[in-house]
Amino acid sequence: MEPGPPGGGRPHEPGPFLSGPRGADLAAPASSLSVVAAVLPAGGCGERMGVPTPKQFCPILERPLISYTLQALERVCWIKDIVVAVTGENIEAMKSIIQKYQHKRISVVEAGMTRHRSIFNGLKALAEEQPNLQLSKPEVVIIHDAVRPFVEEDVLLKVVTAAKEHGAAGAVRPLVSTVIGPSADGCLDHSLERARHRASEMPQAFLFDVIYKAYQQCSDYDLEFGTECLQLALKYCHTKAKLVEGSPDLWKVTYKRDLYAAESIIKERISQVICIVMDTKENKEHVGHLLEEVLKSELNHVKITPGTLCHAGKGLQQIILEQCYNFVCVNVMSSDFQETQKLLSLLEESNLSILYPVVVVSVHFFDFKLVPLSQKMENLMWIREFAKEVKKRNILLYGLLICYSQDEQKLQESLRQGTIIIAALIKERNSGLVGQLLVA
Amino acid sequence: MEPGPPGGGRPHEPGPFLSGPRGADLAAPASSLSVVAAVLPAGGCGERMGVPTPKQFCPILERPLISYTLQALERVCWIKDIVVAVTGENIEAMKSIIQKYQHKRISVVEAGMTRHRSIFNGLKALAEEQPNLQLSKPEVVIIHDAVRPFVEEDVLLKVVTAAKEHGAAGAVRPLVSTVIGPSADGCLDHSLERARHRASEMPQAFLFDVIYKAYQQCSDYDLEFGTECLQLALKYCHTKAKLVEGSPDLWKVTYKRDLYAAESIIKERISQVICIVMDTKENKEHVGHLLEEVLKSELNHVKITPGTLCHAGKGLQQIILEQCYNFVCVNVMSSDFQETQKLLSLLEESNLSILYPVVVVSVHFFDFKLVPLSQKMENLMWIREFAKEVKKRNILLYGLLICYSQDEQKLQESLRQGTIIIAALIKERNSGLVGQLLVA
Repeated sequence: MEPGPPGGGRPHEPGPFLSGPRGADLAAPASSLSVVAAVLPAGGCGERMGVPTPKQFCPILERPLISYTLQALERVCWIKDIVVAVTGENIEAMKSIIQKYQHKRISVVEAGMTRHRSIFNGLKALAEEQPNLQLSKPEVVIIHDAVRPFVEEDVLLKVVTAAKEHGAAGAVRPLVSTVIGPSADGCLDHSLERARHRASEMPQAFLFDVIYKAYQQCSDYDLEFGTECLQLALKYCHTKAKLVEGSPDLWKVTYKRDLYAAESIIKERISQVICIVMDTKENKEHVGHLLEEVLKSELNHVKITPGTLCHAGKGLQQIILEQCYNFVCVNVMSSDFQETQKLLSLLEESNLSILYPVVVVSVHFFDFKLVPLSQKMENLMWIREFAKEVKKRNILLYGLLICYSQDEQKLQESLRQGTIIIAALIKERNSGLVGQLLVA
Repeated sequence: MEPGPPGGGRPHEPGPFLSGPRGADLAAPASSLSVVAAVLPAGGCGERMGVPTPKQFCPILERPLISYTLQALERVCWIKDIVVAVTGENIEAMKSIIQKYQHKRISVVEAGMTRHRSIFNGLKALAEEQPNLQLSKPEVVIIHDAVRPFVEEDVLLKVVTAAKEHGAAGAVRPLVSTVIGPSADGCLDHSLERARHRASEMPQAFLFDVIYKAYQQCSDYDLEFGTECLQLALKYCHTKAKLVEGSPDLWKVTYKRDLYAAESIIKERISQVICIVMDTKENKEHVGHLLEEVLKSELNHVKITPGTLCHAGKGLQQIILEQCYNFVCVNVMSSDFQETQKLLSLLEESNLSILYPVVVVSVHFFDFKLVPLSQKMENLMWIREFAKEVKKRNILLYGLLICYSQDEQKLQESLRQGTIIIAALIKERNSGLVGQLLVA
């Protein structure tokens, strides 16, 4: 196990914005559980992806896919240990990932030549005393894929609860395509009735003694060519697994298009809350508040939450803890960038950007009747150097100049334009455009 | 059938950049075919997508998904007619789509209550004289899904060729998940050996008489609950379909994540070629050529092709015909924007942007020792109005100022920075940032 660096850890999980539906009833049955552990086979080479990197190590927003899956499991507090099986050549890389993203309760073991052998190695590490690992035998073990990053606590709880009752349980989904059986000459022999079959997905859960016994008795042929753990429990322990209907989120990242989809889903999830930071409490008429109103009305699928930098940024620290990854910093009191600077310092201290890139849009108003645009832009060129600096810490800083007009209609138009730009920057999270000064 | 507006059609299909692998052997067998038609059932309501719009009408880069699928079929010249079945309430919307995107050889019929009934309606329109449609009975009919936009000519040809020989043929793919049979109480009854089964995908093809007879004899139960056309041909005509291994591209847009994936794939495909436009042939030492070199070395997965505006833009028109959707216009000879203006006029005339948004980056060099940045920016503010105008025609115009320095190293750094910005703009194709002036 690779502990994270001491102190300065990333914010606590789960944040209310990134975890899925989490009923009040989830905690109670979980606490009545005995020890639960999880095993993640991650020894595959991802040949279907068409890229040289095994898919579990492919980056999404510059972080390896497997780190998202570990994050999904470790935020479930009742999973005591998480054992990851990776090939010998990837063990060091895996340990670096655990350290860099400060994952907890993770142990690394060596994968076998096949999926079943990798799972078996993970189970052995839990069952037997290992010299370098401090693990204890759980009552229930979850088996999950390293490439299904969107698993939610509720389905994990469902399979664990069902496994305690039935000995084994697994998530299933309706079939998307009709399944057919070919004849030896490559023609259609028969087709299966779609409604009578299910796709077997992950996670699955087992009483540890059931699945461990199944693997111990398992034939070499099954270890080599089998694909289904539920089948092993049935064949070797006569345990009929309970099937649990899962959500579409359980899908497996298999092809390159799935990486694209995963990236879009993650970007969408971390773009649901925007914190608008300004120190203009006293002046309700201020244009910063008008911007807030326009953001609220134009981006009605997004939660706009106000933050404040006064009182040593207390309110803001709460928002950071709740994992908001988007900040619009309105610089109004001073003509320069003190507010943005303060915000950036706070963000750097918080380690919020360890897991996801954080977007900061530094907003400045200008009245072109008073100051020429060119001069205002010249004044703000500092943002380029700043952006370069904070980008190293995964903070994406952009500047936004909003044209201030006494004409109500023109002002509204500028604010709407500013909102479109803010939405675009947050949605794309493009590091190639940091330090740019955009004009609305 | 809804003909496109007369004259000024969009560039010819297929472009060499957007079609898939296309062996020289494809044309020959195709020409020996008799009449081939295609039927697209598109009457579904997309309940799995979780959005109110049926998935075939969901926009990708602001164009409905079904238009991409029609484009994929109509670029195959040997498919004579394409019959789309949509629900009564969507017929007018479908006709507008055909007109707006200038699709050819498309007929619209009303969908039935189920997928099989919709296909049957499409076949009837081909078999029987229809008052408003000029269709003739084909020898072979392709059945494809409206939500599989990435079908390639080679797999269409394979299923058509196999259907001529065997009477029926369909594309298949390996199973991604293990398929299991549940017992009545929701437990695992059995699991299927993954290697012995296949997922049945689309396209499929049939001798017309075979599949039409099958539908005519088909029971109400099959029309209501069946999901597999190959099965109907087997059951009612004893025709054993040939199974053809398809590529991963055949996947069906089913969930919201698939829309994300489709958008990313389409964006990637139209970003493979960048045309760099400049009138500096005489001066090989010019900084525009240096930019070209940096683009080539930094974006090595992209084809950089030079275009010229002289001689009435002849070279450029060829590039437009070959469907390049990305232009970097280097304004060097004059300090203003004549080159960019010329390019925009050419693009507007060409109708290139009917199918995809076209990115134009107007590049300007400046030496901050000679002109202050602010003044240069002020000079270029015209770009905002221009961008607003051409955006109406699906052309996304951005400005890029590259800092020119006598210092070789600094210049290279600016050019690299400019390349990163160009790559970001082309990759994201974000309409919210048009008219912005970016600085490298």
